[in-house]
Amino acid sequence: MAVYTQLSAETLAELIAQYDVGELVSAKGIAEGVSNSNWLIETSGKDGAGARFILTMYEKRIDLSDLPFFLDLLDHLAAQGCPVPRTIHDRAGASFRWLDGKAVALIEFLPGVSVDHPTEGQAYSVGAVLAEMHLAAEGFAASRANTLGPETSAQVLAECGEAALAEIAPALPATIAQAREVAEAWPTDLPRSIIHSDLFPDNVLMRGDEVSALIDFYFACTDAMAYDLAVTHAAWSFSSDGHGYRAEIGRALVQGYESVRKLGKDERAALPVLAQGAALRFVSSRAQDWIETPADALVTRKDPMAFVRRLDFYRREGGDLFTA
Amino acid sequence: MAVYTQLSAETLAELIAQYDVGELVSAKGIAEGVSNSNWLIETSGKDGAGARFILTMYEKRIDLSDLPFFLDLLDHLAAQGCPVPRTIHDRAGASFRWLDGKAVALIEFLPGVSVDHPTEGQAYSVGAVLAEMHLAAEGFAASRANTLGPETSAQVLAECGEAALAEIAPALPATIAQAREVAEAWPTDLPRSIIHSDLFPDNVLMRGDEVSALIDFYFACTDAMAYDLAVTHAAWSFSSDGHGYRAEIGRALVQGYESVRKLGKDERAALPVLAQGAALRFVSSRAQDWIETPADALVTRKDPMAFVRRLDFYRREGGDLFTA
Repeated sequence: MAVYTQLSAETLAELIAQYDVGELVSAKGIAEGVSNSNWLIETSGKDGAGARFILTMYEKRIDLSDLPFFLDLLDHLAAQGCPVPRTIHDRAGASFRWLDGKAVALIEFLPGVSVDHPTEGQAYSVGAVLAEMHLAAEGFAASRANTLGPETSAQVLAECGEAALAEIAPALPATIAQAREVAEAWPTDLPRSIIHSDLFPDNVLMRGDEVSALIDFYFACTDAMAYDLAVTHAAWSFSSDGHGYRAEIGRALVQGYESVRKLGKDERAALPVLAQGAALRFVSSRAQDWIETPADALVTRKDPMAFVRRLDFYRREGGDLFTA
Repeated sequence: MAVYTQLSAETLAELIAQYDVGELVSAKGIAEGVSNSNWLIETSGKDGAGARFILTMYEKRIDLSDLPFFLDLLDHLAAQGCPVPRTIHDRAGASFRWLDGKAVALIEFLPGVSVDHPTEGQAYSVGAVLAEMHLAAEGFAASRANTLGPETSAQVLAECGEAALAEIAPALPATIAQAREVAEAWPTDLPRSIIHSDLFPDNVLMRGDEVSALIDFYFACTDAMAYDLAVTHAAWSFSSDGHGYRAEIGRALVQGYESVRKLGKDERAALPVLAQGAALRFVSSRAQDWIETPADALVTRKDPMAFVRRLDFYRREGGDLFTA
């Protein structure tokens, strides 16, 4: 959560002039995005009535060859009526430009706030919009492999090593074998589409019970739709430390999803292992970040145990949890 | 430049409900303010047409007993037609509230961007608006002593000590005696009003050549108006490292100021020493911060030499600079 780069008003005004959005009126660096710098931009608008945008500068982590996939996906989904911000193209039609050697994109601003403690009604809406997104994405021509699947989780944990994992928490080394099991049991023939694959509450903007925007598609990839539901289930249905399962939220998410797209029998049967895989995806990346981030760094390290607790819960209760 | 505190959407919505501004629509933590956390807030507005605000949470440095002074001053100046954001009062009429043990205030959002490299036209406008503010503030009943005057600068530099100052830069120890001289030569009978006393380019929002807002009044105090012009001169008329004096900018600032409020002979005569005092105010606070901030801290330390160069310039050229 940072603004890595300072851009002068003069530089921003010049950049904005490359788009048909009116003149720069206001620009505030915003504290969002883990690996990007972001500005909330206001312009006079094409018609003088004012318009707002998010300007994103891609600082690191993202593979720039993936950028057209992410930005075109937003346009495709928005055109299908999904609550997703559109990419603004410049006067020459480009979806991103270069500034100081970094890629930047201008993206529609959508209202809404991210909730910390969702209600059932909100979870139901999120489930429904996730399913709508899956259906809307089916017509999208491009594809992108999931680079953070169960094999990767298993490999990352193995590479961390038992000793380093045990130093973080005594329960962590056991996840090496568990991740291997999950990778071996992973279903490969479930219905696929483009999935968000990181739909945590802070990537959903809401107004009351309505979803006003899904944002931050920078992990989007081609994979099983039911896996996306499993990720969302793991992200929304627990207290953030992973201790308390909120059954009514988990149920509402799945019900909301099925109000738009009925799960197949194979998808339902796969949900327990998919949910374990979802938990392991975050266990592994958090464990890796923990080991790579010095304890005295100013960055807050995220506790992998919050997702080990989810993993344990899915191993223990997953069988009953997802039966209709 | 940071957001120190995380506030959940639920907490923000509850806070906003204490004001007559409609419902919370959007909230983005913004990377502004050195000792505050700030959010750009959008609400549905009283009439449903939408409204925007800056929510400021006072984290440190500020003496809370001064807060009513700062917030009421905004209201007074805005009512006089100055481009200054109004303080929004809550339903009970309070200009600030408490949240998690910290004071928060809701302040009008005004458009505009801060320029890095001002034009003459912009400098002229800033000078004029500064003078308008001085005149508009004359009717303001409250007062606040300047806690960062020439005596303080001299004392802070003396307390830093020659050895520590020399470690930062060889030219710094000489400023101890220079600050003492300036404090002794300081005029005490110049016309006073409320002054901003920190009007750097990032505290001015502009649209083209027009000033759309003066912001960040948290150093405002009762002092000589000509001193405020001297601070603004030091802040606007040099390259940021203090090397290059931009004569046309300095001239335009003073001309703009005098287009609204003519300087007295005594004020003009005092400008060279006032400008030295302005430079020393930032030399001393930067030197102190430098010594108190570990070299490996993630915070960028601001170089006191950037203002020693301005000080030298004013000592050398000040006599001719401000003759009409």
